[in-house]
Amino acid sequence: MRRRAALAALAAVLLAAHLARAQSDPLGSWNDGGPKRAIVEFVKKATTPGAPDFVAPAERIAVFDNDGTLWSEQPEYFQLLFALDRVKALAPKHPEWKTEEPFEAVLADDMRRALAGGEEGIARIVAATHAGMTTDEFGKVVSDWFATAQHPRWKRPYDRCVYQPMLELLEYLRANGFKTYIVSGGGVEFIRVFAERAYGIPPEQVVGSSGRLRFEPHGGKPVIVKLPSVDFIDDGPGKPVGIQKFIGRRPVFAFGNSDGDREMLEWTAAGPGARFAGLVHHTDAEREWAYDRQSPVGKLDRALDEAKASGWTVVDMKADWKVVYPEAK
Amino acid sequence: MRRRAALAALAAVLLAAHLARAQSDPLGSWNDGGPKRAIVEFVKKATTPGAPDFVAPAERIAVFDNDGTLWSEQPEYFQLLFALDRVKALAPKHPEWKTEEPFEAVLADDMRRALAGGEEGIARIVAATHAGMTTDEFGKVVSDWFATAQHPRWKRPYDRCVYQPMLELLEYLRANGFKTYIVSGGGVEFIRVFAERAYGIPPEQVVGSSGRLRFEPHGGKPVIVKLPSVDFIDDGPGKPVGIQKFIGRRPVFAFGNSDGDREMLEWTAAGPGARFAGLVHHTDAEREWAYDRQSPVGKLDRALDEAKASGWTVVDMKADWKVVYPEAK
Repeated sequence: MRRRAALAALAAVLLAAHLARAQSDPLGSWNDGGPKRAIVEFVKKATTPGAPDFVAPAERIAVFDNDGTLWSEQPEYFQLLFALDRVKALAPKHPEWKTEEPFEAVLADDMRRALAGGEEGIARIVAATHAGMTTDEFGKVVSDWFATAQHPRWKRPYDRCVYQPMLELLEYLRANGFKTYIVSGGGVEFIRVFAERAYGIPPEQVVGSSGRLRFEPHGGKPVIVKLPSVDFIDDGPGKPVGIQKFIGRRPVFAFGNSDGDREMLEWTAAGPGARFAGLVHHTDAEREWAYDRQSPVGKLDRALDEAKASGWTVVDMKADWKVVYPEAK
Repeated sequence: MRRRAALAALAAVLLAAHLARAQSDPLGSWNDGGPKRAIVEFVKKATTPGAPDFVAPAERIAVFDNDGTLWSEQPEYFQLLFALDRVKALAPKHPEWKTEEPFEAVLADDMRRALAGGEEGIARIVAATHAGMTTDEFGKVVSDWFATAQHPRWKRPYDRCVYQPMLELLEYLRANGFKTYIVSGGGVEFIRVFAERAYGIPPEQVVGSSGRLRFEPHGGKPVIVKLPSVDFIDDGPGKPVGIQKFIGRRPVFAFGNSDGDREMLEWTAAGPGARFAGLVHHTDAEREWAYDRQSPVGKLDRALDEAKASGWTVVDMKADWKVVYPEAK
């Protein structure tokens, strides 16, 4: 009896210690292993005053790709799913779409045919759904979509299909004086709507692709109108360019998940002093998706080879993450 | 004797009180008057929790034009003077400039003829001096120029021709939780070199005009190259567009000095809740310059009328500022 009481007490102590450690571990959703260790070691040396790899607080710029790095990008980029939903919502005002590709295919829910037109078709869909309104109006449309739309597989709002381990990483970096940025191929006006709420990243720390804008005075009630032409594509070699345009400093920490992030990682890693370059490798078909070299969305091929050759950190989602998404609210 | 001692003591007390007040006044270089009062009242109501005009910290975006608002812009924009100096420095490598306008005129120190070609001539000078090198190389060239060049009238480095009252205003706003930005028609890569040192504004909070950039891998030592074509002109209606592109929030506080700032001030002032729109009016030919409606540089005409009609704050440099430039170091 005394022995059982002692064991129970021991168990209680061990449980409390485990909970305390879980609570105090800012990266609690990361399994112990190479990537977690690499992150913690980098942050430690970058923030230790006097250490050879110390990074001054003003230089602690950390950049993150969004699609596939901070949230899922399957079965399609979420912004494309938003655009397809918008085509359906706007269809009553566009009777001509009934006979016009790619709109007719979108309205018939024939995704394959809708995307058969390639970039040109997608550009038409984006122009029809992302332009011809003010920036305020677009923000409202996106905000309403997030409030109502559900991810087809996970049946939860899209902005809850974010990665819990990456949320912890963002917070951990900020707690250590890093300024966290999104540098995404996605549309900047789209991402800014939810990035502050979902990631704690304010609008002014979002770099993305963009369409042209026009200021219109409107008799003392000025507006900014979104035009149907492309201004900047923040992908591939566009990512270091976007970083230079919008941030004007070379990051010391970068995370991506696809070949579109390769140049951003190269640019970050090639700077002087301590650098961190990381890739999320989608290896978990059960809890998320498994894809890399052959995937039409988020293709990870050359960047994976380069990661191995250059010693970048590769996160094996299945092995390195205890959970993928935040607990349902 | 006792009486003299008492008077001396009183004088000492008064002097101490004066010094304490001067020290404790964050806007000590501003004379008491309308503009100073308007600034202090705006900041007070924007930062008083529960007040009807309270502005959440994340929304406290303050934007400043640079040329003529934070530093002088006479006898020409300083960046143009930099470009002219660069033409001279680069001339030995460009023998063809000896017979080619506008370079020949620049080399002959004939400013009037050099600028006679208008925007096209200036564009050629800018392309020859601001492109064809990496961003790092350009940063070094600008930095070296600031370390050696002197303003022709004030015989001090250009980055010491900044306005002491505006430095205090920037600091006062930051102390009250505002994020201070430059939104300038000048080149973003030029301004970023000195803005942190001169104004406490980091590179990522500078919005400006820009040329196109290209990422080049260079066998594992990547660079970003400045190209000789224009990417974005951050002036006039381009200013609210630049704010939307780079910041993604509408400012609550804006300061300019010329017609090129009119749309930025309109965009700021037209938002909901408390707003501050200010103009620096150059009225002090002795301590700085006096110019407005007829000036080729920093023309202030329509914006001055609109300021009066809309109740924007107009700073009369001569009357409102105790000093113009910081004490010589």
